[in-house]
Amino acid sequence: MAENNFTEIAIKAKCASKKIASISGELKNLALINIADNIENNSQKIFDANRIDLEQAQILVQKGELTKSTFNRLKLDENKMRDMVQGIRDIIALDNPIGKVLLKRELDEGLVLTKVSCPIGVLGIIFEARPDVIAQISALAIKSANAVILKGGKESLNTNKAIMSVIQDGLNKTPGFPENVLTQVFTRDDVAEMLKQDKYIDLIIPRGGNNLVKFIKENTKIPVLGHADGICHIYIDESADFEKAKKVVTDAKTQYPSACNSVETLLVHKNWGRKKELTDALEQNGIKIIYNPESWHKEYSDKILSYKEVDSLEDAISHINEYSSGHTESIITENEHNAKIFMDSVDSSGVYHNVSTRFADGFRYGFGAEVGISTNKTHARGPVGLEGLTIYKYNIEGNGHIVKDYAEGKKQFHHRDL
Amino acid sequence: MAENNFTEIAIKAKCASKKIASISGELKNLALINIADNIENNSQKIFDANRIDLEQAQILVQKGELTKSTFNRLKLDENKMRDMVQGIRDIIALDNPIGKVLLKRELDEGLVLTKVSCPIGVLGIIFEARPDVIAQISALAIKSANAVILKGGKESLNTNKAIMSVIQDGLNKTPGFPENVLTQVFTRDDVAEMLKQDKYIDLIIPRGGNNLVKFIKENTKIPVLGHADGICHIYIDESADFEKAKKVVTDAKTQYPSACNSVETLLVHKNWGRKKELTDALEQNGIKIIYNPESWHKEYSDKILSYKEVDSLEDAISHINEYSSGHTESIITENEHNAKIFMDSVDSSGVYHNVSTRFADGFRYGFGAEVGISTNKTHARGPVGLEGLTIYKYNIEGNGHIVKDYAEGKKQFHHRDL
Repeated sequence: MAENNFTEIAIKAKCASKKIASISGELKNLALINIADNIENNSQKIFDANRIDLEQAQILVQKGELTKSTFNRLKLDENKMRDMVQGIRDIIALDNPIGKVLLKRELDEGLVLTKVSCPIGVLGIIFEARPDVIAQISALAIKSANAVILKGGKESLNTNKAIMSVIQDGLNKTPGFPENVLTQVFTRDDVAEMLKQDKYIDLIIPRGGNNLVKFIKENTKIPVLGHADGICHIYIDESADFEKAKKVVTDAKTQYPSACNSVETLLVHKNWGRKKELTDALEQNGIKIIYNPESWHKEYSDKILSYKEVDSLEDAISHINEYSSGHTESIITENEHNAKIFMDSVDSSGVYHNVSTRFADGFRYGFGAEVGISTNKTHARGPVGLEGLTIYKYNIEGNGHIVKDYAEGKKQFHHRDL
Repeated sequence: MAENNFTEIAIKAKCASKKIASISGELKNLALINIADNIENNSQKIFDANRIDLEQAQILVQKGELTKSTFNRLKLDENKMRDMVQGIRDIIALDNPIGKVLLKRELDEGLVLTKVSCPIGVLGIIFEARPDVIAQISALAIKSANAVILKGGKESLNTNKAIMSVIQDGLNKTPGFPENVLTQVFTRDDVAEMLKQDKYIDLIIPRGGNNLVKFIKENTKIPVLGHADGICHIYIDESADFEKAKKVVTDAKTQYPSACNSVETLLVHKNWGRKKELTDALEQNGIKIIYNPESWHKEYSDKILSYKEVDSLEDAISHINEYSSGHTESIITENEHNAKIFMDSVDSSGVYHNVSTRFADGFRYGFGAEVGISTNKTHARGPVGLEGLTIYKYNIEGNGHIVKDYAEGKKQFHHRDL
């Protein structure tokens, strides 16, 4: 796609974002109902497209050019289709995140300030492999009144097109719903163009591996929401309970080793009495322990765990604040005081006590759905749901009020919250 | 300053940020009291330093290398000194923005999620001319538990050094307050180095002219909070009240023409009956009206106003959404319906009805103080007070909880807000 064409797409998305910004919650929900119904009624069309992608992917797997796990993420089945539709219905049930009054303050007689939530504008979503992401992201974007330009992985091209076509049909059945709220683009050149459109695109959300996210962060001036690495830590304090330690570390490393919230490094207080017993138990659970890793920045995405003994709680906190990717960390301890110090001092999006790091997830937090997990220090951090797709504006209602009267002392602000 | 030295400063600031993150609100307020007292007790030292800067600046003014208005911003007097101290005392009186529980939710029996406000980390502040900014920014940073690296304008070098030295003395009188929370750097090279430190600096806040802000945005991967242009609009609707229109436009253009929230473009509905009367009145108030401006992107910073007639409310909204810098816009109308459409559809940080655009300001909004006004679409928008210097983290307290139990259906989340 030529550069000019992409700019045109971006301008159309910007226009659509202005239109969807002021439509009602009812209309947005009606659109989402039509999308969910249409996916249900056209699942065969989507499965057919997915079969074409899977046939091509199978050849790549045989050639060793595609991993089995990527193949599995590509593959849609009845369960994933049901989850996709249920995910949209769950989003319908959530409160409208737009138009919420966040602050209402009378600045002076007849002069009222209102801080009200509003959409961000145009989101650029770049994702790999999992085609069901389209439905989830589209539904979150519609609910939060943002326009979206989506670029999916090339391995799921036919599935992506089929899902988007079914979604667009749903929107076409929704009178009054603006055009161009959702746009799909397809090529690597489109990604390069998307990253340049800081005039029209307000936020980029990459969903994929470290390399994708790092590439995007390095190559755009647009704010990027997400995380590259997931270097999570568990620290076993001097007074840790053995059973909790074993259970939590095993879960955090084996329940889904390739997840970003899996633990990568185990820190153990040198005076904890059951060090050897724990590592033996972990090894019995199929975890390979690396006692002298080449780097503390390694994300294994496998049943492998870096191991370090530390002299103190403070050492553990320092190690984590130095090497963590700011995702999620947990302390195992029966000492409430140490737990509090850990939770206050560790600078990550999730800091837990006697809990598996695997809980870092929008569904588990009760957010209904998530667009991803952010390790950013601004805007949105941790699992990002609808709220992370909103910002706010300040409205003032007055009656010919001017600043001169206040500057000259004729009038005074009284700042009374309403 | 060599590159390595700056990295060292940044690392020290990062360390300091971890320490200040968990100190009490009382200790932060004590530090602020000591700073305010110390400024009061050492004002002569600061005036002396300021006099040296002013003598040098006076020569530059005579050579035509410095404007009179920059000279005025450089100059400290008793009023500014009193405001500086009062500004700090006002910040002391504000609620502690750190450690606020933003959400508390029982995910399941004994598994409690808490979303708690925390500091961002290290702020990089780059400002021009006004030396009193140092005290304001330092106080806001301390209250919000962030570390700061400040770079001021070279014209106020001596004043900046004197103010910072008095502030640091105040901190030294505060037992338990961590070192290196505030650092000042001085050279243009330091700015270049600061912009590269995305590993250690979390947010850059420029306070200065368009060129400074644009340069910074173009040259860093660190999030930047602020605004470059302030192209504010007032739209006079078909049913506008003449007196309100005249009063508000005059205030918005003349009360402080070089402020970012001054109006630059006046849009008038073609059918409004008192067009000529308004422009005549504005011209009598010393405003020069440009009927065919070369560009709608022009920020005059003077008593000059671009003028355009529009066919409809929709045309006015389109013009604003196309040419505005997203700062602040106002509609003058007696038609409530039109006012609502305008306020919902205009995509700027402030959207007003029958009010001067000059109200866009943290003090006027009752935020106590502001670090600046943001036209960003993420994190913080409009006047940014303490809240914009915070983010949050998610803590979970559990008792050996693991995800496997939920994945296998042995346990269910119940998500009960506490």
